Amino acid sequence: MNEYSSKLLETAVSELSRLPGIGKKTALRLALHILREEKDFANNLSLSIVRMREDIVFCSRCNNISDNEFCDICSNHKRDENVICVIENTQDVIAVENTSQFNGLYHVLGGVISPIEGIGPNDLSISKLIERINKEDIREIILALPATVEGDTTAYYIYKLVKEFDIEVTTIAKGVAIGEELEYADEITLGRSILNRQPFYNET
Amino acid sequence: MNEYSSKLLETAVSELSRLPGIGKKTALRLALHILREEKDFANNLSLSIVRMREDIVFCSRCNNISDNEFCDICSNHKRDENVICVIENTQDVIAVENTSQFNGLYHVLGGVISPIEGIGPNDLSISKLIERINKEDIREIILALPATVEGDTTAYYIYKLVKEFDIEVTTIAKGVAIGEELEYADEITLGRSILNRQPFYNET
Repeated sequence: MNEYSSKLLETAVSELSRLPGIGKKTALRLALHILREEKDFANNLSLSIVRMREDIVFCSRCNNISDNEFCDICSNHKRDENVICVIENTQDVIAVENTSQFNGLYHVLGGVISPIEGIGPNDLSISKLIERINKEDIREIILALPATVEGDTTAYYIYKLVKEFDIEVTTIAKGVAIGEELEYADEITLGRSILNRQPFYNET
Repeated sequence: MNEYSSKLLETAVSELSRLPGIGKKTALRLALHILREEKDFANNLSLSIVRMREDIVFCSRCNNISDNEFCDICSNHKRDENVICVIENTQDVIAVENTSQFNGLYHVLGGVISPIEGIGPNDLSISKLIERINKEDIREIILALPATVEGDTTAYYIYKLVKEFDIEVTTIAKGVAIGEELEYADEITLGRSILNRQPFYNET
C-alpha cells in the first residue's frame, strides 16, 4: 500500500526529515505549507540553501564562516582590532553579537579539545590564533569557551601558549544568572560564584 | 553591528525561519547542519522542494495531491474501487493509509464547512463527489471527517445529498481510545461511547 499519493511529495518529505530535529510528521507539515505558498516561496528557500552551501567559505583571518576571504566582522573597520574573543563555533559568535556588549574581533576554534571525541589541539584553529597574535597588534584575548571540562581544558591550553606574549588574557564571568533565585542555582555554579566573588563596587 | 558574519547564511536562516514552527534559532541550527553536510545534501533538499512545488497537481478523480492526472492511489488497480473514504485533507489520507485498514479509494474535500472561516459547501469538492457517485460503481461511502462541529456539519450535509442514491453511508467509530483508562476519557466522548454501545460479539 502507498503512503503518499504523490512521489514528489514523498521525496520532499524524506529530504526534509533528514534535517536535525525534523521528524516525518513535521516534514510533511512543512512540505504541505510549501505547497500552499506561492512558487516564489519554494524557489527562494531552495536558492538560499544551495547558494549558501556552494559559496560559503571560512574567513582567512578569524576562521568564522564568510562570504569572502574576510568575513563581514573582520572587514568592519569600526570594530576594535586589538581585542579578540576566542570562541568555539559560529553559533557562539552570534550569541555574543546578540548581547551588543562586544565590539572586537573573533577567533573561531571550530570546536574544543575533547579526548573522548578524538579532538586534539591540532584539529582546532589554535596555531592560527598564535599566528594572529604574532602578526596583529593585539591587546587582549577573551576566552569565551563553554563552561564544561572540555571548554576549561581548551581555555587552559590556550592560556599556557599565550601567556608568554605581552597581552592580557581574560575569560567570561561564570556565576549565578541574572534574575536567578539562589535556591534554584546549581551547587557548583553557586559555589564558584562565592569563590570568585568580586568587590561590590565592581558590579555593573 | 552585524549579527552574522555571512550574508549567505543570514539569507538562508531568514528563508528557513519563514517555515511554520521554525524560529530563528532552529533555522540557524538547520542552516549550520546543511553547511556541515556534503553539497549533495543541500542540492537534493532544494531540488525536491522546487520540483514538488512546480509539478504537483490535484488528482482529477479524488482531488488529492498528485504527480499526474490521476494520483498513485486512484491508479492502483489492486484497490477496491467500490468504496470511497471521504476525507478533509492530504494529511488525513496519510493517517488512514498508515493504519493499513483501508484498501478503497479516497475523496479529498479540501476542508470542512465552517461559517466562521467563510468556507461553504461550494468551496469544497462536494459536487465532484456526487459526480463520482453518478459515474462510478460505488457500494459504500465512509465519512471520515474530524469529530468537530464543522466535521459533523459537513458529514451531515453530504449524507443528505447522498442518501437518495442506493449506496451505504457509514462513518468512522467515535469512542474511547484503545488503551485508554475510562477515568481519563473526556465526558462527551465517554457519554457518546455509552450511547453508541455495540453488541459485545461485534467488537474486534
